[in-house]
Amino acid sequence: MQMRTVRVAIAGFGGVGRATACLLLSRRARYRQVYGVDIRLVAACGSRAGLSDDRGLGEDQLGALEDGLSGPAFIEASGADLLIEAGPSDFRTGGPGLGYIRSALSAGRDTIVVSKGALVHSGIELRQLARRSGALLKLSGAAAAALPTIDLVDHSLKGCTVLKVEGILNATTNYLLDAMMTRGIGFDAALREAQLGGFAETDPRNDTEGWDTACKLLILANFGLDADLTMNDLTVEGIQSVSGERIEAWRREGLVPKLVGSLTRADGTFSAAVGIKAYPLSDPFANIRGKDKAIRIVTDAMGETIAIGSGKEPLATAAAALKDLEHVLTARAAAHLSE
Amino acid sequence: MQMRTVRVAIAGFGGVGRATACLLLSRRARYRQVYGVDIRLVAACGSRAGLSDDRGLGEDQLGALEDGLSGPAFIEASGADLLIEAGPSDFRTGGPGLGYIRSALSAGRDTIVVSKGALVHSGIELRQLARRSGALLKLSGAAAAALPTIDLVDHSLKGCTVLKVEGILNATTNYLLDAMMTRGIGFDAALREAQLGGFAETDPRNDTEGWDTACKLLILANFGLDADLTMNDLTVEGIQSVSGERIEAWRREGLVPKLVGSLTRADGTFSAAVGIKAYPLSDPFANIRGKDKAIRIVTDAMGETIAIGSGKEPLATAAAALKDLEHVLTARAAAHLSE
Repeated sequence: MQMRTVRVAIAGFGGVGRATACLLLSRRARYRQVYGVDIRLVAACGSRAGLSDDRGLGEDQLGALEDGLSGPAFIEASGADLLIEAGPSDFRTGGPGLGYIRSALSAGRDTIVVSKGALVHSGIELRQLARRSGALLKLSGAAAAALPTIDLVDHSLKGCTVLKVEGILNATTNYLLDAMMTRGIGFDAALREAQLGGFAETDPRNDTEGWDTACKLLILANFGLDADLTMNDLTVEGIQSVSGERIEAWRREGLVPKLVGSLTRADGTFSAAVGIKAYPLSDPFANIRGKDKAIRIVTDAMGETIAIGSGKEPLATAAAALKDLEHVLTARAAAHLSE
Repeated sequence: MQMRTVRVAIAGFGGVGRATACLLLSRRARYRQVYGVDIRLVAACGSRAGLSDDRGLGEDQLGALEDGLSGPAFIEASGADLLIEAGPSDFRTGGPGLGYIRSALSAGRDTIVVSKGALVHSGIELRQLARRSGALLKLSGAAAAALPTIDLVDHSLKGCTVLKVEGILNATTNYLLDAMMTRGIGFDAALREAQLGGFAETDPRNDTEGWDTACKLLILANFGLDADLTMNDLTVEGIQSVSGERIEAWRREGLVPKLVGSLTRADGTFSAAVGIKAYPLSDPFANIRGKDKAIRIVTDAMGETIAIGSGKEPLATAAAALKDLEHVLTARAAAHLSE
């Protein structure tokens, strides 16, 4: 039996990039056995340093990157067949990911995206680039990671029309609202505590003002539901101005507030919003705690489907990226047969 | 563009079979548009009567079946390319479905199974038949219908090792335990009430003694996790002997009992059991009510993933069968390209 070689490059080598590299290397025997494919990690790079080896990097080499080996041209030169992009996310500029993804898709290289920035900033352009070049563009890692979201629409609810989507997609706001509700502390105190515990960033506005939720919602809409939304189409409210009185009122009514991203279909197009919704205790959404995420999808024929995910990071996000890799291998095995 | 024709037959024409036929016919434009396939319903039959037309049956014809048109030979003669089996389920004999499914798989015909009986009775034989003939065998409708179960393992958690599965898979026991807990009535009273309301069968033992849950669990294990379990390998306990004292104790401890099917991996093989587990209110499983179903899958890399489904029957089950149809069309489109 002929063993095909698939050369993988990873751009963005922080926690998720490294976890993805290690998980990939640990699954090489699986890829050979299930897909008949020899997977090699031929390049990995962060913003300033990297490493490449056409014979495939081993886990022991990943500790010592070389300065200057970075950037789209470095990935091009590595001869990679497939790119996994896991760099820092910036939806206002597209971040460093945009250059890597553009370069890969233009060359017809299958691309798995983990960071949200480029997909939010230039999603529609990237979708078109992929269609034109025939490259596959997968992005589970950017659309709530291990929580199945686009998977549900693409696979589990196949054939149904999605009428409505609601998601609890951000851990920090989940943690903060939980602290405010259960321990009666205010937003500022909860935030300071979360920052000390490492559950909130030094500049927490991307989470607390709803932008992170908005990014995931937009990616889900544009790549899972074929919408054409930009950030300007979204109404985005965060949790930063929730008052003690509002917390007290929810508690009195037995409701639990969550920061929720929602998509609603009307006349064939989706409208999108991020804001607080309060749920009764009997609703599974009321019991989504801390780092867990959840999505509720309502369709015409299958009613309501809820998924709840609670994987540990960065492993769960790495596993989401490598789920995409297996979907690419499956699709390419079919295409390969037809050549 | 060349339009391929796919001829579909439906065996078993009760509520689910009919709902499947109607949904299939209503989606013909979608099949043409998305898959470039002209789907025709060329045959449909119940246990004694049926109808066939090579040009495709219309919804208006489905009210008047002709006596005597039934059985595997009738389906063979219809020239169907694909069988959807939705007959009555009997796991002790395999039910009428077994003959239909055997006949279709032996002939290399792709088969979508909705009823559980044959899959539980002769699952391993049918799995082998399909492998030998190259037919695709799909069974979402039999594995908790609109609730994604095998989908999650096959697609959303791809690449991960499943360590544990827990499912609330039976509506009747859910309803009965709920009535006993929230209204303090005993099993017999709850059952009579459920029977009067149409939520329990006249002979309810298949549900109350745990066999229905066991069937779904077995199908999930053998077809989703590649196990080789038979009913004899399962420990099956129902809810028929739950006492008022036990109900009272759970209530005192703030726990909610559910009839749960579980699979646990140890040393590479799964052990399976059906029995009552009691959950704290903060667990999403505690809030699964009435006709809803839920599954929790624990994997090595993605942690815990929960899905909750609450579609209306028989439409949701029909939609599950037709999700399988789209997966078959996708797989066959890839194979078709390679011919």
